[in-house]
Amino acid sequence: MTDKLRPKEGWHVLHLYYRIDFGSWHLLSNEEKFAAKTSFSDLTPAFSFYSLTERSEYTTSEEEFGASLIEEKGLSKDSAEFSQAIEDFRARMKKYLQDRLYPNLPDWPLVCFYPMNKRRNEQQNWYALPFADRKRLMAGHAQVGRRFAGRVRQLITGATGLDDWEWGVTLFARDIFEIKSIVYEMRFDEVSARYAEFGEFYVGLQLPLHQLFTRLLL
Amino acid sequence: MTDKLRPKEGWHVLHLYYRIDFGSWHLLSNEEKFAAKTSFSDLTPAFSFYSLTERSEYTTSEEEFGASLIEEKGLSKDSAEFSQAIEDFRARMKKYLQDRLYPNLPDWPLVCFYPMNKRRNEQQNWYALPFADRKRLMAGHAQVGRRFAGRVRQLITGATGLDDWEWGVTLFARDIFEIKSIVYEMRFDEVSARYAEFGEFYVGLQLPLHQLFTRLLL
Amino acid sequence: MTDKLRPKEGWHVLHLYYRIDFGSWHLLSNEEKFAAKTSFSDLTPAFSFYSLTERSEYTTSEEEFGASLIEEKGLSKDSAEFSQAIEDFRARMKKYLQDRLYPNLPDWPLVCFYPMNKRRNEQQNWYALPFADRKRLMAGHAQVGRRFAGRVRQLITGATGLDDWEWGVTLFARDIFEIKSIVYEMRFDEVSARYAEFGEFYVGLQLPLHQLFTRLLL
Amino acid sequence: MTDKLRPKEGWHVLHLYYRIDFGSWHLLSNEEKFAAKTSFSDLTPAFSFYSLTERSEYTTSEEEFGASLIEEKGLSKDSAEFSQAIEDFRARMKKYLQDRLYPNLPDWPLVCFYPMNKRRNEQQNWYALPFADRKRLMAGHAQVGRRFAGRVRQLITGATGLDDWEWGVTLFARDIFEIKSIVYEMRFDEVSARYAEFGEFYVGLQLPLHQLFTRLLL
Amino acid sequence: MTDKLRPKEGWHVLHLYYRIDFGSWHLLSNEEKFAAKTSFSDLTPAFSFYSLTERSEYTTSEEEFGASLIEEKGLSKDSAEFSQAIEDFRARMKKYLQDRLYPNLPDWPLVCFYPMNKRRNEQQNWYALPFADRKRLMAGHAQVGRRFAGRVRQLITGATGLDDWEWGVTLFARDIFEIKSIVYEMRFDEVSARYAEFGEFYVGLQLPLHQLFTRLLL
Repeated sequence: MTDKLRPKEGWHVLHLYYRIDFGSWHLLSNEEKFAAKTSFSDLTPAFSFYSLTERSEYTTSEEEFGASLIEEKGLSKDSAEFSQAIEDFRARMKKYLQDRLYPNLPDWPLVCFYPMNKRRNEQQNWYALPFADRKRLMAGHAQVGRRFAGRVRQLITGATGLDDWEWGVTLFARDIFEIKSIVYEMRFDEVSARYAEFGEFYVGLQLPLHQLFTRLLL
Repeated sequence: MTDKLRPKEGWHVLHLYYRIDFGSWHLLSNEEKFAAKTSFSDLTPAFSFYSLTERSEYTTSEEEFGASLIEEKGLSKDSAEFSQAIEDFRARMKKYLQDRLYPNLPDWPLVCFYPMNKRRNEQQNWYALPFADRKRLMAGHAQVGRRFAGRVRQLITGATGLDDWEWGVTLFARDIFEIKSIVYEMRFDEVSARYAEFGEFYVGLQLPLHQLFTRLLL
Repeated sequence: MTDKLRPKEGWHVLHLYYRIDFGSWHLLSNEEKFAAKTSFSDLTPAFSFYSLTERSEYTTSEEEFGASLIEEKGLSKDSAEFSQAIEDFRARMKKYLQDRLYPNLPDWPLVCFYPMNKRRNEQQNWYALPFADRKRLMAGHAQVGRRFAGRVRQLITGATGLDDWEWGVTLFARDIFEIKSIVYEMRFDEVSARYAEFGEFYVGLQLPLHQLFTRLLL
Repeated sequence: MTDKLRPKEGWHVLHLYYRIDFGSWHLLSNEEKFAAKTSFSDLTPAFSFYSLTERSEYTTSEEEFGASLIEEKGLSKDSAEFSQAIEDFRARMKKYLQDRLYPNLPDWPLVCFYPMNKRRNEQQNWYALPFADRKRLMAGHAQVGRRFAGRVRQLITGATGLDDWEWGVTLFARDIFEIKSIVYEMRFDEVSARYAEFGEFYVGLQLPLHQLFTRLLL
Repeated sequence: MTDKLRPKEGWHVLHLYYRIDFGSWHLLSNEEKFAAKTSFSDLTPAFSFYSLTERSEYTTSEEEFGASLIEEKGLSKDSAEFSQAIEDFRARMKKYLQDRLYPNLPDWPLVCFYPMNKRRNEQQNWYALPFADRKRLMAGHAQVGRRFAGRVRQLITGATGLDDWEWGVTLFARDIFEIKSIVYEMRFDEVSARYAEFGEFYVGLQLPLHQLFTRLLL
């Protein structure tokens, strides 16, 4: 059955947030505490978010890239350089797509998650914009993200039809200051300033399970 | 009494969602667990939605169909072909209506449900649109749905006056990717982009009860 | 004391909705169950709504009716027919007012309740409309209601200053299909389409108490 | 310490609303019930509102009153009547201010409370209006209140920075019909119609504590 | 590990609000009460807010200050007075930055906290304003704050990406009247009137822990 439920492309992503009720915890015996720790996922989560990794629909197409080679670099369409550049582009995009659909997550200690929607307001309606406008806006948005390369890594997953929000954003960093900085700077970008609606923000530490229990005094 | 409560047309549809409190579940004896499983509907649901199956008010009328036969196909109103086409139309609409009011649901493993309203905002007011505009918009909306024929089956039920939302949408699919795709594509359609308000999204598996219990470790 | 709290006109109306916690119910002894059933109103309600029956402020005045007799029916103000028509009008309005303030509710099995507000938005502000506009709009609204005469009976109660919503609407019908139909049709009426805000919808059965307990398996 | 926390002017006002959990109440012994009744304020309130009595910033100033004596009544600034009128005005305003800051509440049986905000919407922004406009609007608002003199007494307290709403309105009356009437009429006044946002409405009885317990069957 | 999580600049600030459940508290033994008091931070908070102290991005730059010395004070750029004024400016700004990032909090008895957002509405969008406009607006906003110098001290912390609100405002005062006054006056300032969205307001006393327990009857 599990196999049948594997989606056509990408991974299922399940964010689960638990709340420790310390009052009840202290009432448990040591055996019960141990049992609770080893079957952690049987506790009821305080917040959950179900989404799928997804390709971006706003990436540069091979046609666009080829045209830019001719117009901007002055390459001829049947030159060896053109063919080589196209081949490199394909390899790059394949790896990019692979990273989007089957990502390797960094082991950086800080993790931030928030769900978001694109607005459908009267004068701020993302879904009423032509594709070209959305592509241009997303390109500007991506530039802000690139300025944080090496300091913040992000995972964008889609949840339209699967959960109450349309996307989930998961950020990884080594310094919480960087999380605050990127989200703050992004807020001035037109995609966020005009079209984004944010849900709750969750900040946490990425730790081996036994260190997590020690930190939580469990 | 039950018989008296059967509506003039269509079925009552009751969506019930339960949440398992694993903490309490583990405290039950085996006898209590068995009793709870066999009287599942006595648990209090975490979410419920009550609606009726309903006919669509935006289908093509016999007059419209007849006019299109004369104007577009060049048929004469008293020809045998005209009569035959009208008869076929009636049979098709009868079956369509039957399927809307007394639907056969597929046994596909994935089920998605969400309630929705049409907006009554200052500049996005569905209920202030003339009938002809609503019919045209719904026709475009239906086209998106038809592109997913064979991959996504949908059940639309009406709840105006019965529950807090006006409609319930239940989608069936074999791949969760298709659920995400159809809801995402629909969002760009004008009916959704400008006039729809969505409630919570529930995604689940359609399983024989004993398999469901096994999956939930109950 | 109770007597002193009788309002100047109309009745107090208290809608109380209870939720049965079947999990806890099964833990009660038979004695406790019996006690709970005989003192039902000591359970804490899941939803309550407190309002007063009220006269409508938009009914035809005697002056308006008299003017219409002269202008539309061509009656002379000192004719016997005019006097008779005015007398009939007074009797009809007295009965209508009596029915609004001290209503007889039908014993039809289906009951629907929802609270509502009139909007005070920037371009949809009921309370900023002149009285004449509100009267004209309410007259159109009432016409939709009259089309359901004999199928749906309604009770409108006012709660401004008494509860979180301004009005309560209680509908009675023999077929749930009629409840859905009237509320759906009303939604296209300008009063609802532009100026109404709805709360939660509650649908229930009107039953003798012992039949209610049987149905709920209590 | 308590003394130090007395504000520069006015009183602290604390509205506390409790909910009786009759299910739990019945489980208490008579001793526990008695203890609970004598230490009522140790129960956790279901709703609380903390505010301060405050002066109105929109009252007539001495300069305005003096100018109106000269312009409207034709008094000369150095006449004895002018001096007397000013003296009376000062005494009246002193008493009015005293009543606002240290009010005597009537022992009328009905009490209504609701918190409210002034709007800061795009086209309905109270805080963006010039002082003169706010003063004029509040004068019209006060006229509605004055029509209910002797039937409804009101206490306005300020909570900006202290609680989630900006003001608390407490109304006293002998007939619940008057509470409903004043709040309904006020809603058409421009201050409410365009600029007010209301919270939850609480209606209750003012009773000696032992009568309250009898009424609640405690 | 703790050391690694120290942010690049500023402090972590954690606001935790607890609710005492007096019903449960009375059921504890004296030993349990004592244990609960000595491990207070193991109770689950009713509200929490996580933010970082931060520099203001709208302070006067050295270039701006230098230009004002030349234009407004008529100083020459290579005069000794100019150099001295710049040096003083640097020292002042260094201390100001130090106070923002590593603040000394006053021991005044009253503490008020509320979280806030800047709006991104259609016509009230802070994040769509040019930097110069935001700087000018914030300068006017700061002037209101300065009028309360010596009476209200404020701590502004940033939470974009860390919590559900973008900023936390913590106010300290000796008289609750001053808290109410500053927040009320601020509301008329354009930054608040047009662009601010406020969360819940929490007012409390700053007390030694044993006095706090005495006050709460714990």
